[in-house]
Amino acid sequence: MDIVIVLYNGMTTLDAIGPYDVLGHLPGARVRFVGAQPGPISTDQGHALLAAQSTFDAVDRADVVVVPGGPRRDPDPELVRWLAAVDPTTTWTTSVCTGSLILAAAGLLTGRKATTHWAAYDRLTALGAVLTPDRVVMDGKYVTGAGVSAGIDMALTLAGRIAGDRVAQAIQLGIEYDPQPPYECGSPAAAGPELVEALLSRSS
Amino acid sequence: MDIVIVLYNGMTTLDAIGPYDVLGHLPGARVRFVGAQPGPISTDQGHALLAAQSTFDAVDRADVVVVPGGPRRDPDPELVRWLAAVDPTTTWTTSVCTGSLILAAAGLLTGRKATTHWAAYDRLTALGAVLTPDRVVMDGKYVTGAGVSAGIDMALTLAGRIAGDRVAQAIQLGIEYDPQPPYECGSPAAAGPELVEALLSRSS
Repeated sequence: MDIVIVLYNGMTTLDAIGPYDVLGHLPGARVRFVGAQPGPISTDQGHALLAAQSTFDAVDRADVVVVPGGPRRDPDPELVRWLAAVDPTTTWTTSVCTGSLILAAAGLLTGRKATTHWAAYDRLTALGAVLTPDRVVMDGKYVTGAGVSAGIDMALTLAGRIAGDRVAQAIQLGIEYDPQPPYECGSPAAAGPELVEALLSRSS
Repeated sequence: MDIVIVLYNGMTTLDAIGPYDVLGHLPGARVRFVGAQPGPISTDQGHALLAAQSTFDAVDRADVVVVPGGPRRDPDPELVRWLAAVDPTTTWTTSVCTGSLILAAAGLLTGRKATTHWAAYDRLTALGAVLTPDRVVMDGKYVTGAGVSAGIDMALTLAGRIAGDRVAQAIQLGIEYDPQPPYECGSPAAAGPELVEALLSRSS
């Protein structure tokens, strides 16, 4: 099973690494990190951290594609073109956070149920998707996760669909995913309007 | 605030990246990734993925150190020596997963309460720590997290101690950390003995 995780400048690292440390443990998985050029990309925090091993040119098919998100508003046109071209070969095309906006920009989510980071709901709707504000949303072969940390939930859900509950449960136990967040504020509803406004005003 | 995240061959990527995408958003944070040499290390899945920007030689102090874990049984002696040398300069010395075994190998956890990945409890005890099987354990300036995904909980807890609840809550909302695991099996107690045995027999 050929799993391709996309890297690009400005992406959020955890969006890619949550799914990596889940899907990479599927039986028979081969994971490749693909980017516009070899070598480290710059993360959304400005670190030259994540190194692609393959370039878009060299990857023309995949069983699973994972597209991470990030605070950038303009996806790389080269990435959008590559995604549209490779999507017909995939069994699952997936995203985490605002990665769904890149799927939508490639025309893959038109009329489909999908989710994204809570601060990008309007943008996902504007791109033609049917916003479904759940943690993980499946519509056919398109699997989208909510913001950043939801990539772990997205990938475990997908692992169960690909390899069965038992395999996915072993992976969940292996990464000791028994989350105990210190606060009850991980969603806009739980956080309340004041904290939501504070974050929105900071990022705009 | 100088945050140093350690990279080494064979480490589990998510152990480092959960804390990165939390602690990097603290006000005034400067994050550096440090390793034995510059350039990508090989992850526990064998990918030349994470690139250090600094070497151990070049980093002789830090406010916060984060040591990730991984399936390796033998920590790099160079890393252990560096950690013992830099620890007196830190405000917080932290680990995720079996990273606590490296803290213990450096002599930092003798007689202290600490945790680790559930499959490494015996090894942590053998190294002189007082095993405390919670998700996040604080003993003085030493903060240890349970396996892999616990790095997010560890880092958010630490963020609250460093910058206050309000800042930590904003970070939690920013990464939309409202976890919804698809299964109830992220701890040995929840998973049950059969799944635990299956994982232990696979990794030994």
